Amino acid sequence: MCGIVGYVGGSDAGSFLLNGLRRLEYRGYDSAGVAVHGGAEINITRSVGRIDALAGELGETPPAGMLGIGHTRWATHGPATHENAHPHVGGEGEVVLVHNGVIENFQLLKDELIKKGYEFKSDTDSEVIAHLVAEGLKKTPENKEQPNMRYVTAVQWAVAQLRGTYGLAIAFREKPNMIIAARFGSPLVIGVGRGEYFLASDATPLIGSTERIVYMADHQLAVLTPEGFSVLHRDQGKVRVDIRPLETESNEVSLEGFDHYMLKEIYEQPESIRNAMRGRLDEQDATAVFGGLNLTPQQLRGVERIILTGCGTSWHSALVGEYLIEELARIPVSVEYASELRYRNPPIDNNTLVFGITQSGETADTLAALRETKRKGHRTLAICNVVASSIAQAADGGVYLHAGPEIGVASTKAYTSQCCVLAMLALYFGRMRHLSYEGGKRIIEEMQQLPGAVQQALTCDVQVRDVAQKYKDVSNVLYLGRQYNFPTALEGALKLKEISYIHAEGYPAAEMKHGPIALVDEHTPSVFIIPHGTTYEKVLANMEEVKARGGPVIAIASHEDPQIESIADDVIRIPSVPEILQPIVSVVPLQLLSYHIALLRGCDVDKPRNLAKSVTVE
Amino acid sequence: MCGIVGYVGGSDAGSFLLNGLRRLEYRGYDSAGVAVHGGAEINITRSVGRIDALAGELGETPPAGMLGIGHTRWATHGPATHENAHPHVGGEGEVVLVHNGVIENFQLLKDELIKKGYEFKSDTDSEVIAHLVAEGLKKTPENKEQPNMRYVTAVQWAVAQLRGTYGLAIAFREKPNMIIAARFGSPLVIGVGRGEYFLASDATPLIGSTERIVYMADHQLAVLTPEGFSVLHRDQGKVRVDIRPLETESNEVSLEGFDHYMLKEIYEQPESIRNAMRGRLDEQDATAVFGGLNLTPQQLRGVERIILTGCGTSWHSALVGEYLIEELARIPVSVEYASELRYRNPPIDNNTLVFGITQSGETADTLAALRETKRKGHRTLAICNVVASSIAQAADGGVYLHAGPEIGVASTKAYTSQCCVLAMLALYFGRMRHLSYEGGKRIIEEMQQLPGAVQQALTCDVQVRDVAQKYKDVSNVLYLGRQYNFPTALEGALKLKEISYIHAEGYPAAEMKHGPIALVDEHTPSVFIIPHGTTYEKVLANMEEVKARGGPVIAIASHEDPQIESIADDVIRIPSVPEILQPIVSVVPLQLLSYHIALLRGCDVDKPRNLAKSVTVE
Repeated sequence: MCGIVGYVGGSDAGSFLLNGLRRLEYRGYDSAGVAVHGGAEINITRSVGRIDALAGELGETPPAGMLGIGHTRWATHGPATHENAHPHVGGEGEVVLVHNGVIENFQLLKDELIKKGYEFKSDTDSEVIAHLVAEGLKKTPENKEQPNMRYVTAVQWAVAQLRGTYGLAIAFREKPNMIIAARFGSPLVIGVGRGEYFLASDATPLIGSTERIVYMADHQLAVLTPEGFSVLHRDQGKVRVDIRPLETESNEVSLEGFDHYMLKEIYEQPESIRNAMRGRLDEQDATAVFGGLNLTPQQLRGVERIILTGCGTSWHSALVGEYLIEELARIPVSVEYASELRYRNPPIDNNTLVFGITQSGETADTLAALRETKRKGHRTLAICNVVASSIAQAADGGVYLHAGPEIGVASTKAYTSQCCVLAMLALYFGRMRHLSYEGGKRIIEEMQQLPGAVQQALTCDVQVRDVAQKYKDVSNVLYLGRQYNFPTALEGALKLKEISYIHAEGYPAAEMKHGPIALVDEHTPSVFIIPHGTTYEKVLANMEEVKARGGPVIAIASHEDPQIESIADDVIRIPSVPEILQPIVSVVPLQLLSYHIALLRGCDVDKPRNLAKSVTVE
Repeated sequence: MCGIVGYVGGSDAGSFLLNGLRRLEYRGYDSAGVAVHGGAEINITRSVGRIDALAGELGETPPAGMLGIGHTRWATHGPATHENAHPHVGGEGEVVLVHNGVIENFQLLKDELIKKGYEFKSDTDSEVIAHLVAEGLKKTPENKEQPNMRYVTAVQWAVAQLRGTYGLAIAFREKPNMIIAARFGSPLVIGVGRGEYFLASDATPLIGSTERIVYMADHQLAVLTPEGFSVLHRDQGKVRVDIRPLETESNEVSLEGFDHYMLKEIYEQPESIRNAMRGRLDEQDATAVFGGLNLTPQQLRGVERIILTGCGTSWHSALVGEYLIEELARIPVSVEYASELRYRNPPIDNNTLVFGITQSGETADTLAALRETKRKGHRTLAICNVVASSIAQAADGGVYLHAGPEIGVASTKAYTSQCCVLAMLALYFGRMRHLSYEGGKRIIEEMQQLPGAVQQALTCDVQVRDVAQKYKDVSNVLYLGRQYNFPTALEGALKLKEISYIHAEGYPAAEMKHGPIALVDEHTPSVFIIPHGTTYEKVLANMEEVKARGGPVIAIASHEDPQIESIADDVIRIPSVPEILQPIVSVVPLQLLSYHIALLRGCDVDKPRNLAKSVTVE
């Protein structure tokens, strides 16, 4: 999703901006640009496509200057063109800015500005803000005593008219030493150096440049100059901020010999699952322990309902969590799309605990849904991967995945780690209630086998390659599973959709008869997730129904299943694990299948079209 | 889905069988067959495709006889071939039967029978039962005093070995005057005549032949001869049965000038909605009234949770019901896929009310889920269209849709009537709780406008034709909506999938960013359901995101929306109704869109491939 970087200080801005934008690449974008203040003029360079294209555009002697802002854009209003790339110019060039977020009332504002004579060069909502700030400057007289304040006032006037979300970095032609930043609903981090200050939409670009950072909060503005920085509340004046250490996890971001981050991350899963469980399985008491829940056992014992909310892949892990928690702890669980929950206002009982699930911790919809339920007085917890992310700060407490940075846009290891954390939470809540010591102990033993089972599942790679070769040219695929493997079907379909652009769709296997089976013909394969379990024979009957209509069948089946080969056209084998842990193992061949098919189709596996790694707009 | 007919009496069996099978056609099937007992031999005729083909096969002088059984098959095991069509023969021809349902352990039984020397001519699970009955006859000595009992015993022995579901009609070479029927999980109805008895999988084929019927229950066997009929429990001997009048609704099954039943049913919606509301809106008390809930106001006041369960289109109306009941009555609602609920065993509170929603009342998964929750002591209610259907008999009470027979396989008027009934239930529960007299009165007034609004929505037909013409050749479509129009998106996508075989998929509009947007390109249109409402501007922003990636946009928008034309490529207008009632109006253009696209693609609108009208197998 869109990314922001900014620099003001005594060094050349360009190199930090380019390096910073490269660090943000993994979030997904379709165009990029930088603006560098040369003292008298601001030089803007924009480019469609990758950062490499932008670097080429800048050439060997890029514009010099000690103040600059940069941006990667994920298109929301208007296609990915040169004109729509940031930075955008306001007025006659007196304002230059980059913007993350979505402005909902931009059309109205744009119409008014056009009436006033402002000319628009792009389709974006962001250009509206640039002109608004220019208009704000017109309206604001100079302030001799505090010259910077005129610019702050202009920005305050401009953002007061916006409906929507924004993270802004703004430079001014007349101020070669000052950046103003503003945040509402779109994260911004200030990096504190010595005589130089940095700005970024998350902490990643700051690694190596500074070790002290400040997370801006909603409604805050910041003024950055080489002499120092100050943060103001939009309406209430100056605020004191906490300078925190920049926590970075180990440098797990090289490819380490793999062709793609996605493949590397798929293969990291035995390790990332181990990390998710490290120190959290308590054999002594046959339960799980978590450090950061920030709730007393009494409070947790009082939980009568659980809501799990998330988007995309995290929504799928929430579905797995529903089955796990309801089975092990007998606490009723509701799974909600975060984007629906935030506006829906459903009746929620007292003693309901809300979990927001997001890899990045920055997913706008999940963050908003969590804040909305927290505002209503419910306890909220986060399950996320990125330490000190927005959701980790917003929730009452939470559980980190410790999966290491996930760079591939299609989530893999974060998904299995989420399932793993939810299994431990189910064990924990279960042991508080109906689950016996023996039952808890058995689950712990089974969980300890998981990294080995996933390791073994990865050996299906060879089989999967053959299957990928055979089906790489299909246009449609159905993914079908039941109970614990219904979310697996959804997740397998999403993976294929995301990186190969094949229309894949997941369904509960039995639901297929109620419509989707109309799609079945010899060109539309169905992937059945059918390891041994309670509904094995039922799913087998559904498989027969597909076969009877001439549809090719790919089965993800247990090693110990002699029957399956007589029905399915292709079989991929996975090791047997107890049903409650199957989602963590059975998804592995589906991740590999989508990877190999995408590769054979020549798709950009790590940076699929149209997608962003963490979706920080609504 | 599969259908059964049977006849024993003094007239020619053939004509009843053929007419009966024609009456069952609307349920969807892919092959058919009849067996007529000629006295010494049983003559079997089978055919792939329509009943007309079977009639052609039978020719002008069909085999004569006064006992016969017939079948329409919807393939579950093995493709739709001549060999797999019913009736099937057991042993050396001494047994002939037709079967509805699915036998899960058929492979095991088949292997054993092959070892014993039985020869199989088909891939079906049903042929296994035929041979099993033959084997049962071998094992059972003749019974001189009660000669029929030998055959009953053989059938009892056979069905005792089956795991799965069955509705069976069995004829025997040595018994030209006797049919044995058996039921478990697949409905059978006996028609009681004078000196003649009928059998069918639902009451439709019996209309005109008799007015007295008996619904068989699970585990029952029936023996039909021209002298009379008797019903036995599988293990407990003879049972007394109730003979009921055959209730039939008016003869609304002609096409009345429309080209297809589906189109006729779409156009019937103003009337069917009116029928759903008739006598149920109480202006005096500003609430709704229902005749058949069979629960006291005190019991209903005590309801603290509601579960809505169904399959396919009914599952979509359940999602609408969730939004309605949670908003108007503030009772938390869970929506469950019936096929998942029946095996999942989720924790369910006391004071939970379970609704099973199904047009036909025969949907196997919904029926089983309802029975499972009833068995656990929860109160159960049915929302269904077919009077005296299995679910109506199984539930504690319920609400009929009164939509008249729905013949098109793709449900249209039943869906809007389900939404309408759920709105009235929400009003009723709301008025028991937080909803004021004024609030109830306003909703009643708004509901009374509904038939008119749907009538007005139907006038979009001309616009829809143009849109259909433009997009008829696409391979993929996304349907996007939020809140009340999210289920509409799912339902619109399902309609297109069912009858045009285009891969369409519905999503909450904001969820699209988390994966599905990867599918968007110039060949993949998105249908946005975006009437005025609380999330209008949010959905507009999602629409911009799709436009920015070059995807064509079709908008279903309010008449009073001047802005939409500047963004969407095609706009279909619908009248404005309050948000809670929008699902009933906004689905109309989507029904028409799928109809016209399917027509342009040359698809069989009323009998789409692979599908069955009511899914009576798991």
